[in-house]
Amino acid sequence: MSNSRLGVWLIGAKGGVATTMLTGLAALQQGKTPPVGLVTELEPFTALGLVPFADIVVGGHDIRPGALGEEANRMWRESRAITPDLLDAAAPLFAATEARLRPGTIVAAGEKIASFAAPETANIAESPRAAIARIRGDLEAFKQAEGLERVVVVNVASTEPPPATPVPETFAEIEPLLDDADRCPLPASSLYFLAAAQAGCHYVNFTPSTGSTPPAMQEVARKHGIAHAGCDGKTGETLLKSVLAPMFAARNLEVMSWVGHNIFGNMDGKVLDDPRNKAAKVKSKDHLLAAILGYPPQTHVSIEYIESLGDWKTAWDHIHFKGFLGTPMMMQFTWQGCDSILAAPLVLDLVRLVDRAAASGETGALTWLAPFFKSPLNVSEQAFQAQFTLLTDWATAHAG
Amino acid sequence: MSNSRLGVWLIGAKGGVATTMLTGLAALQQGKTPPVGLVTELEPFTALGLVPFADIVVGGHDIRPGALGEEANRMWRESRAITPDLLDAAAPLFAATEARLRPGTIVAAGEKIASFAAPETANIAESPRAAIARIRGDLEAFKQAEGLERVVVVNVASTEPPPATPVPETFAEIEPLLDDADRCPLPASSLYFLAAAQAGCHYVNFTPSTGSTPPAMQEVARKHGIAHAGCDGKTGETLLKSVLAPMFAARNLEVMSWVGHNIFGNMDGKVLDDPRNKAAKVKSKDHLLAAILGYPPQTHVSIEYIESLGDWKTAWDHIHFKGFLGTPMMMQFTWQGCDSILAAPLVLDLVRLVDRAAASGETGALTWLAPFFKSPLNVSEQAFQAQFTLLTDWATAHAG
Amino acid sequence: MSNSRLGVWLIGAKGGVATTMLTGLAALQQGKTPPVGLVTELEPFTALGLVPFADIVVGGHDIRPGALGEEANRMWRESRAITPDLLDAAAPLFAATEARLRPGTIVAAGEKIASFAAPETANIAESPRAAIARIRGDLEAFKQAEGLERVVVVNVASTEPPPATPVPETFAEIEPLLDDADRCPLPASSLYFLAAAQAGCHYVNFTPSTGSTPPAMQEVARKHGIAHAGCDGKTGETLLKSVLAPMFAARNLEVMSWVGHNIFGNMDGKVLDDPRNKAAKVKSKDHLLAAILGYPPQTHVSIEYIESLGDWKTAWDHIHFKGFLGTPMMMQFTWQGCDSILAAPLVLDLVRLVDRAAASGETGALTWLAPFFKSPLNVSEQAFQAQFTLLTDWATAHAG
Amino acid sequence: MSNSRLGVWLIGAKGGVATTMLTGLAALQQGKTPPVGLVTELEPFTALGLVPFADIVVGGHDIRPGALGEEANRMWRESRAITPDLLDAAAPLFAATEARLRPGTIVAAGEKIASFAAPETANIAESPRAAIARIRGDLEAFKQAEGLERVVVVNVASTEPPPATPVPETFAEIEPLLDDADRCPLPASSLYFLAAAQAGCHYVNFTPSTGSTPPAMQEVARKHGIAHAGCDGKTGETLLKSVLAPMFAARNLEVMSWVGHNIFGNMDGKVLDDPRNKAAKVKSKDHLLAAILGYPPQTHVSIEYIESLGDWKTAWDHIHFKGFLGTPMMMQFTWQGCDSILAAPLVLDLVRLVDRAAASGETGALTWLAPFFKSPLNVSEQAFQAQFTLLTDWATAHAG
Repeated sequence: MSNSRLGVWLIGAKGGVATTMLTGLAALQQGKTPPVGLVTELEPFTALGLVPFADIVVGGHDIRPGALGEEANRMWRESRAITPDLLDAAAPLFAATEARLRPGTIVAAGEKIASFAAPETANIAESPRAAIARIRGDLEAFKQAEGLERVVVVNVASTEPPPATPVPETFAEIEPLLDDADRCPLPASSLYFLAAAQAGCHYVNFTPSTGSTPPAMQEVARKHGIAHAGCDGKTGETLLKSVLAPMFAARNLEVMSWVGHNIFGNMDGKVLDDPRNKAAKVKSKDHLLAAILGYPPQTHVSIEYIESLGDWKTAWDHIHFKGFLGTPMMMQFTWQGCDSILAAPLVLDLVRLVDRAAASGETGALTWLAPFFKSPLNVSEQAFQAQFTLLTDWATAHAG
Repeated sequence: MSNSRLGVWLIGAKGGVATTMLTGLAALQQGKTPPVGLVTELEPFTALGLVPFADIVVGGHDIRPGALGEEANRMWRESRAITPDLLDAAAPLFAATEARLRPGTIVAAGEKIASFAAPETANIAESPRAAIARIRGDLEAFKQAEGLERVVVVNVASTEPPPATPVPETFAEIEPLLDDADRCPLPASSLYFLAAAQAGCHYVNFTPSTGSTPPAMQEVARKHGIAHAGCDGKTGETLLKSVLAPMFAARNLEVMSWVGHNIFGNMDGKVLDDPRNKAAKVKSKDHLLAAILGYPPQTHVSIEYIESLGDWKTAWDHIHFKGFLGTPMMMQFTWQGCDSILAAPLVLDLVRLVDRAAASGETGALTWLAPFFKSPLNVSEQAFQAQFTLLTDWATAHAG
Repeated sequence: MSNSRLGVWLIGAKGGVATTMLTGLAALQQGKTPPVGLVTELEPFTALGLVPFADIVVGGHDIRPGALGEEANRMWRESRAITPDLLDAAAPLFAATEARLRPGTIVAAGEKIASFAAPETANIAESPRAAIARIRGDLEAFKQAEGLERVVVVNVASTEPPPATPVPETFAEIEPLLDDADRCPLPASSLYFLAAAQAGCHYVNFTPSTGSTPPAMQEVARKHGIAHAGCDGKTGETLLKSVLAPMFAARNLEVMSWVGHNIFGNMDGKVLDDPRNKAAKVKSKDHLLAAILGYPPQTHVSIEYIESLGDWKTAWDHIHFKGFLGTPMMMQFTWQGCDSILAAPLVLDLVRLVDRAAASGETGALTWLAPFFKSPLNVSEQAFQAQFTLLTDWATAHAG
Repeated sequence: MSNSRLGVWLIGAKGGVATTMLTGLAALQQGKTPPVGLVTELEPFTALGLVPFADIVVGGHDIRPGALGEEANRMWRESRAITPDLLDAAAPLFAATEARLRPGTIVAAGEKIASFAAPETANIAESPRAAIARIRGDLEAFKQAEGLERVVVVNVASTEPPPATPVPETFAEIEPLLDDADRCPLPASSLYFLAAAQAGCHYVNFTPSTGSTPPAMQEVARKHGIAHAGCDGKTGETLLKSVLAPMFAARNLEVMSWVGHNIFGNMDGKVLDDPRNKAAKVKSKDHLLAAILGYPPQTHVSIEYIESLGDWKTAWDHIHFKGFLGTPMMMQFTWQGCDSILAAPLVLDLVRLVDRAAASGETGALTWLAPFFKSPLNVSEQAFQAQFTLLTDWATAHAG
């Protein structure tokens, strides 16, 4: 391959996940951090010949004002989650990446997200079609400027509201609507996806936003021969649900109710404070229990923005279950995890694995990436270990 | 088969697990409880043609004074864990079972357990060899009186201390020592096991006591062609460890420390208040983490007798782990489980499965029963889902 | 005094708090339970010459269909919170009390509460003035039938929504509106209060409903010379807030956020599932923190109806605070309390203390009862120990 | 007063509490931190005319090798509890203080503590009498070098074991034994106290070590006219016990058991890993419950050294209590507090208050300082708010 470098294009490049990923990428490139938190640095993934961290080059879109490094600095100042020495070491990578940033689109991103847009972004008046073309142009310019043959686009932007009207089943039905923002049913995340597909870039949706999920979008992916994966990175409370619920099922313990209360204070939390944006997230965190247990327990998921917590996503789950002879029992857990710190290495894992799959000729939805996602595309299996077996089986089959 | 009934012989028949199992057996026989908590009532186990609950007949040994139903009544009075209606319904089964009880042995059971013995049991002066012969006689009498062809002996007695001296590798080395309690290295649980093997009964060790674990005992099992399984039912905190630790491993999150604090107030708790007895238990609860993670985190397990809790085994676990960029995070859980309620259905599962395996001609240690145990015999796999796959694979292969 | 008996009239007599109180009253009268949970059985209250339990006679209103004992039976069946022996012992008291029940009013009780009404209650079409007259008649008939000179009316009904329009400052402004349900600003709880005052009964508001709180109602209390107290019994999470917040204040630790998540499954929970009813409750649970701390931390209170929990009100609180040098720290607690079990003895305490105060000639709002309430009438002090000192000082001054 | 400066002499000057206090003192002197965590910066204490932070000069003893700032740096590196900017700002104060450090004594400090001693300290062979004389000399030299008239000595060293033999009731009985380390019953902390008293320095015992507690030591304090206070700073789990237990008492809820499990990883934790040292600590954390409740619930306190936690003292408490009608309920809390961060401002509070009391002519044990201590000297009141009222009453009486 003439150019061994992999381009990674981040939608939401100024956010907590993106900037933590960049800080970590710099630390990995410089050998300043062990690969803790990276699945791809475990056996058998290390035998897959994945792209080295040194060969990853990053650009991206964002709608926010402000410097790229701001959110990473808040990870230190407000959350004590990234130490100053690592931020210092990442400064050159931040500078180089910042030069590659382009303004995102607020077309169909929802009012809450639009309210955070920088004036120069907010002022771009464009149809969905024009937005796709502009984004595609940015991606092609990135490829050309960096001499890249492979690019993976990753959506790490804040959660948008679900589409107000159903997305038609075929792209042919959608295509004519792209000129009219009011009639076009696609949210921003799907516009980005279409641009990526047209530019021949692979695509990962790390959020619960619509992205490549609708059948019409998956049709486009197949047509352009790109690989894609999603949705919604599984990093904390939902990961635990997918780990614990199979145990209750395997022991024939009857889960009567499962309550999850999530509090956190980062930008994502601010966006989820809007009930429209929150609806998408709650659904993604909740649906798996009935799928794993085989019956629907009463569930409740709340997500609240608590500013003082910064990036510390704290969850309390209360599981009320019935055992032998009808005896009710309880399990409770609290998870005190740093949201971006948990998510960022998974983004690196995903771009490396998608890139590797594409090199093997895989296109369409990569279902074996299920363990990374709350709502894995085209996969009904929700139990974590069963999903993880899909992943390791794939890796073992492809390991050199 | 001329007699379709299965005999179940409980060592520690007056204990919480045994009497809860009996209450549940009565309720199941009378259709008074749904099969919640019973693994063998799930797919694919329901297709195995397991012994029906109506065909199970129970007897047992115990060293304690008092009526059989006392501990089950305490489950109601002190723990509100079994309701009075179920106790009333079980009264006939308790009466029938009580008539089949025989005094156990305190030979080599340890001082703590001996201190709870009824005078008539404490006064039996016997060598290990005589104890084996007496127990064997009880088992054979049970078979004859009930016309049973198949019996499974289950150790649900309190935890005994580990052997003071190592158990020799072969039975030939042990045999000559059986006449002298002071030189014989076998603890009481192994004497019961030897009696079971000699009487052609299969054997399940639901406790961390020695039982059939030593190579010399396994040799005896093979010689007598019996099936056996153990050790130490995995019902609560350790079950959770075996479910959660694989998640940390799969995500490459570094567990720095894992602290588990267990409190409960039943007879088991009283026995574990003796440090010698507790040592065996703590080891069984602790060793799996390093096996699953691949490295030894700092661990701490405490078990404390708190009388007011009765059968409610409450555990608090604190897991301190390191994520990407070295960020330390925490997971905590509390498990409020009723110990005997969790254990009792597993005892029923185990006798049904061991009986079924024996019917298929399996002898020796049944390794696919690993998910039921904290320290599965001859199995290094400690991750719960991987163990559960062993079990379901066996069941699928044998399902009619 | 010719008749030493005290009448207690319960509004919401079929609810969990009321029927638990009745079960407990029977048990206390029969010496079947120690006085755990009763403040008035502690020093110095035992020296006050309070009415003996044997001299309490109970009647009440309710809008629900069904037998009086139903909710108490659910306390056993669904929550294992009252044992069957105590229910059996209370049967005669339940029967006697049931004969004294009268249908309540749904005038201005809100849609949610009205939806639970028995047909015969739902069909009573009456103006606010007529409702007051009817209720007053019931109270006077109770007095006469039982030969009572002293009656305390206690509101233990479900929480109603706050008044849609502000309650005028004087009763003179309200009086003319009583004929028209659409224009009358008084909610049901205040109609009951007015009836009580007119009948010369003292009044306790154990709920966050409006009751005697508005200045115009307090004016009526003074005019009729009755004593009253409220609002909203402080039994669990809010009690803990009023105990813990003073510690953070006394140590100059800065509370940044205080999140409380409450789940429970009794009738109260069902009513609070309506956002209008919930609003009143959340306010009552939340306002005290700023009052105690002297500054407003970010707070969040959620209350969710989780059916499987029955009467077990489980709360998780997460307190994020800043210490010396700006270091953020956390306290979390879970409270697993049985709502009606915690509330019922306080109702007995309150009727005994109000009766005693009235005997000493006290009228109007009894501010020294502050420690019993989330929103104590006419009291700004919110710290529990300071409130408790008010109570014990009063008791010491009045103790024989 | 010719010299307005106050000398503070820290025993255990290189420890976490001492170095955090120094970092904070520097930050306060430079206006770099708000006075969060300092009781003396609240009303009414601000009106007492306490010594300003700028007028505090610090010296101390320690037995450890290594630089003064090492432990403060570990607070950053291992616990993320003090930020680097504050450590940088404190460097000059650390340098000035380090020049005033003198080697402590390991006479009667216990084996565990002696094992941490620097060679030059470990090699000082001295009788108790010689140790007292040497320490007194150090204190007098400090006074002279800095021109100080007032010095408060504070014991913030690690917990020593309780005395092996009872300390005689009078100093006359002890005096003749001071020449022989083997016969002298006084532990190291009391030798430091005697030196302080002889040098006319006031004394605060922030640890559970013996210090000035024995009647014979209190006699010495009175003879020398010095003020003293102790023992054992109340910063976390025990503080909560003293806040929560009064609530259970006030509500007549019967505490059946109270279990506290503490884990942490700083130097104190290492020292407490020795059962002899731990015994003193556990007693100090445990005794208050029976005193507050009026009856002894079953209690259990464990303290375990978990290295990864650094200075984060994490406690889980499980409180099992009985309410009305015998219903058992549970409260659990977790406290995630930074031990030294919680303790350090209290040390500053105590030296300021002791200095102020001495200026008013108070000598002997200052009982109104009770809310600062787990085992307040000569005070039986253990409820926090009652103790805090003692403190605020004193302050109000002395406020200008």
